[in-house]
Amino acid sequence: MNNIKLEISYDGTKYLGWQRLNDTTKTIQGKIESVLSSYLNNEIKIHGSGRTDGGVHAYTQVANFHTNSDIDFENLSAYFFEYLPEDIIVNSSCLVDNSFHARYNAISKQYIYKIDNNKIHNVFTRKYNYYIPDKLNIKAMKQASKYLIGKQDFQSFTNDKTINKSFIRELTKIDFIEYDGYVDIVFEGTGFLYNMVRIITGTLIDIGLSKKQIDSIPYILSSKSRSLAGAMAPAKGLYLNKVIY
Amino acid sequence: MNNIKLEISYDGTKYLGWQRLNDTTKTIQGKIESVLSSYLNNEIKIHGSGRTDGGVHAYTQVANFHTNSDIDFENLSAYFFEYLPEDIIVNSSCLVDNSFHARYNAISKQYIYKIDNNKIHNVFTRKYNYYIPDKLNIKAMKQASKYLIGKQDFQSFTNDKTINKSFIRELTKIDFIEYDGYVDIVFEGTGFLYNMVRIITGTLIDIGLSKKQIDSIPYILSSKSRSLAGAMAPAKGLYLNKVIY
Repeated sequence: MNNIKLEISYDGTKYLGWQRLNDTTKTIQGKIESVLSSYLNNEIKIHGSGRTDGGVHAYTQVANFHTNSDIDFENLSAYFFEYLPEDIIVNSSCLVDNSFHARYNAISKQYIYKIDNNKIHNVFTRKYNYYIPDKLNIKAMKQASKYLIGKQDFQSFTNDKTINKSFIRELTKIDFIEYDGYVDIVFEGTGFLYNMVRIITGTLIDIGLSKKQIDSIPYILSSKSRSLAGAMAPAKGLYLNKVIY
Repeated sequence: MNNIKLEISYDGTKYLGWQRLNDTTKTIQGKIESVLSSYLNNEIKIHGSGRTDGGVHAYTQVANFHTNSDIDFENLSAYFFEYLPEDIIVNSSCLVDNSFHARYNAISKQYIYKIDNNKIHNVFTRKYNYYIPDKLNIKAMKQASKYLIGKQDFQSFTNDKTINKSFIRELTKIDFIEYDGYVDIVFEGTGFLYNMVRIITGTLIDIGLSKKQIDSIPYILSSKSRSLAGAMAPAKGLYLNKVIY
């Protein structure tokens, strides 16, 4: 049995997200599985490192699948390029150890949230970031972000309403990269809850716009109440940047 | 009478080009004129520095218009932002001398043609540049481009079939900027014929792919025959970068 690892980029704009649905044409996983199944003439299921929501992008998503067939990687690469739509790219495919699993072996993940904070938005990047014309106070956002680092209960920052579930996750890094009026917020953590990056981003934006206080964060965290956190930032600004193994 | 100068950016993807047509919703000029006319409650015609083809973009297009109304520029700017679609932005508007005319006073213009020359295209820039997976020989393209500099007859490099017209134009600069597998070709000249930049780009690409010889250029120029030049490069990679006055 061969275990194959794929590295994938996608523009998520027109998809319902990563995870396969019955209508395979609307998800990234569905698209890749259907191309792969026709290539190998066998129904293939792939395992992604995790889901991404509808409209969310990936610079590098990682997935793996098992097959009894021997793979000619150059040929597979050409086939992907020919049959995948132009908004999904398999950047690399290679044979890995049989024990490798894209989700279970992931140590941490990095997401980037991109904000256009120019007074007037850029027409060429408008589909790929969140435009906020009012000047963000990045210093305040940085200070607030420090409260979010560490292993803690993030129930206030998810739309997951499952009962009897652990909402404890660990955020290891939140960095702010500023250039040409844009702000990229880089999130790194060992695990993320449903919508967590977008809700944290929305809350940090509230702080950057002085709609919330810097020290509201510890209070929001301890409240375990979604309603105290900020609105969810739009999907189009969010990118799964890399998965660390 | 006030003379107002506008600086405009647009993503040309979904428009038929700059120049007004009967259906004002399909051209950039039409969109701006209709917003301006409703703002000033008077039918306004604007003069652009020149046309751009359907699908061609602009970082900075320049236009002017006359009005008897006194303009509050901050207010006008907010109105444009509110009523123009998000793919057209008026970056600045200001009062200029009555003698200023966006087209007649233009000394030269700069266009940029953007090529993604990576083996695998970038999913996030694919709508805004021309993807060529085969490695371009930029050195050959640079050498060939030298033949195009100067004041000469560019009839071979236009789709304009007008009879008894001068096809003499002056190209003052062709530069190649390479970064991360992308190539930007910068064209500067005092005047450009219909489709000229895209046909020159297509011809230079043929040279970069060894489909044409470097020294075919003087021959193509002197033939005055469109059929000897290369195919027209697609509109989506072309940007009017700036107009020099």
